[in-house]
Amino acid sequence: MPRPQLTDSARPATVTVSAVNERGEAVPTPIAGEHPLTLYLDKREIVTLMTLGAAPEALVLGYLRNQRLVASIEDIAAVQVDWETDSAAVTTHAGSRDIEELMSRRTVTTGCGQGTMFGDLMEDVGRIALPEEGRLEQATLAVLLDNVRRHESIYKQAGAVHGCALAAASGEILMFVEDVGRHNAVDAIAGQMWLADLAGGDKMFYTTGRLTSEMVIKTAQMGIPILISRSGLTQMGYSIAQQVGLTMIGRAQGKHYLLFTGHQRFVAGPLHE
Amino acid sequence: MPRPQLTDSARPATVTVSAVNERGEAVPTPIAGEHPLTLYLDKREIVTLMTLGAAPEALVLGYLRNQRLVASIEDIAAVQVDWETDSAAVTTHAGSRDIEELMSRRTVTTGCGQGTMFGDLMEDVGRIALPEEGRLEQATLAVLLDNVRRHESIYKQAGAVHGCALAAASGEILMFVEDVGRHNAVDAIAGQMWLADLAGGDKMFYTTGRLTSEMVIKTAQMGIPILISRSGLTQMGYSIAQQVGLTMIGRAQGKHYLLFTGHQRFVAGPLHE
Repeated sequence: MPRPQLTDSARPATVTVSAVNERGEAVPTPIAGEHPLTLYLDKREIVTLMTLGAAPEALVLGYLRNQRLVASIEDIAAVQVDWETDSAAVTTHAGSRDIEELMSRRTVTTGCGQGTMFGDLMEDVGRIALPEEGRLEQATLAVLLDNVRRHESIYKQAGAVHGCALAAASGEILMFVEDVGRHNAVDAIAGQMWLADLAGGDKMFYTTGRLTSEMVIKTAQMGIPILISRSGLTQMGYSIAQQVGLTMIGRAQGKHYLLFTGHQRFVAGPLHE
Repeated sequence: MPRPQLTDSARPATVTVSAVNERGEAVPTPIAGEHPLTLYLDKREIVTLMTLGAAPEALVLGYLRNQRLVASIEDIAAVQVDWETDSAAVTTHAGSRDIEELMSRRTVTTGCGQGTMFGDLMEDVGRIALPEEGRLEQATLAVLLDNVRRHESIYKQAGAVHGCALAAASGEILMFVEDVGRHNAVDAIAGQMWLADLAGGDKMFYTTGRLTSEMVIKTAQMGIPILISRSGLTQMGYSIAQQVGLTMIGRAQGKHYLLFTGHQRFVAGPLHE
């Protein structure tokens, strides 16, 4: 299958600045990068994303995927990220039609933590069917949480970023992306899954971020039936998870967690030692 | 001065759902509300915000203020929030002109954690002059952090929200808003300041959220010279704070903090006991 041509333009994740602490001591402190990246689709300016820049090509692809601006990865000829101009130029094989119409609808529905296409997303929710057969054993959840805890991360160095992981049914981490925006981190994983032609049905999704409506919808759109977060959830995240039959676990850290929805996939049992 | 007519349509902040913990026990768990609120300006649909709904009228006003869609609070005749239709109808005295042009520019610059008008915001940064004379004593910072810690909050009950506080020079909390989106919480404070005709020059701003570019820009736009966060910061937040001369403190919790920029306003000294 033809894959798009991609640059490989990850930026350094952190810079170190000097701060002064409560004892008046100078403390060299790593802080997370944040850079504007303006996305052009067939030379049409779409959006400026503020990003850590760890996976800019995947971010751009996942953004186009999740915003439904491009239907298939095969439609995309190239993604060229250029930090001299803070731009990502995406070219399609056919040339993008209907962008004007898509963008005009986008204007009025931009929302969600002031984020994405709420109206369209909610329409999608009704069409999503997640696979019923997936299972998550309690011991596997513990393995996943331990893998996340031990994963090298920018968060440990610099804070101020959110992380997302795509995990196999075994709890093994397959992809891990951090970004200054939690939506960017999810989008970058969606882009990597698109590139690798990975389906979500036998996977789990982990995020450090809160389980708001948009996070739940994006997980369901990726076809992933199990969503785990270190943080809490919102009422609408809860409702949508119930509606699409997602297994959703919040406040998962160390040995603790709360299972909120989709109990049918969860298998309580002895923990591996 | 004429003030707009406002509804008073705050929603209950939390609902309680049942979750199952790691010991298999059912745990009644409060979760934060999250509701779509579609903003109409003189009947023109502008945006759908996902909000906790604690201060919807102030949120809508602050959104219009920070997005530069309305120039003055005196231009606004009424804000009517109606949760039957999840809508906020804003009417202006003169009728809004130029909205189409403003909105078309908005489309292409939407960004910032997939949030706001990045291009326009950065243009504003060059024009901001913060007052030099403000001072923050170390003991006052401790008072503010203690006030925040003791403040009743939805976060303590349900997590999954970000809080913002506007504080007086004494460290007293004047306004406190929580929302599921950290940008919404800031916007709601901006709306409340607009309504109360409060200037920012002798105030401090506290947020639980990260100090990204947009948070720093919005604080500077409100004319507030001192910004404090429990969380970390990004490279662009740091750069813009330096550029506008903002006093910025991160990782502020308990007795600890890191002073990053604007040292000239900070007065180290003995802590009150």
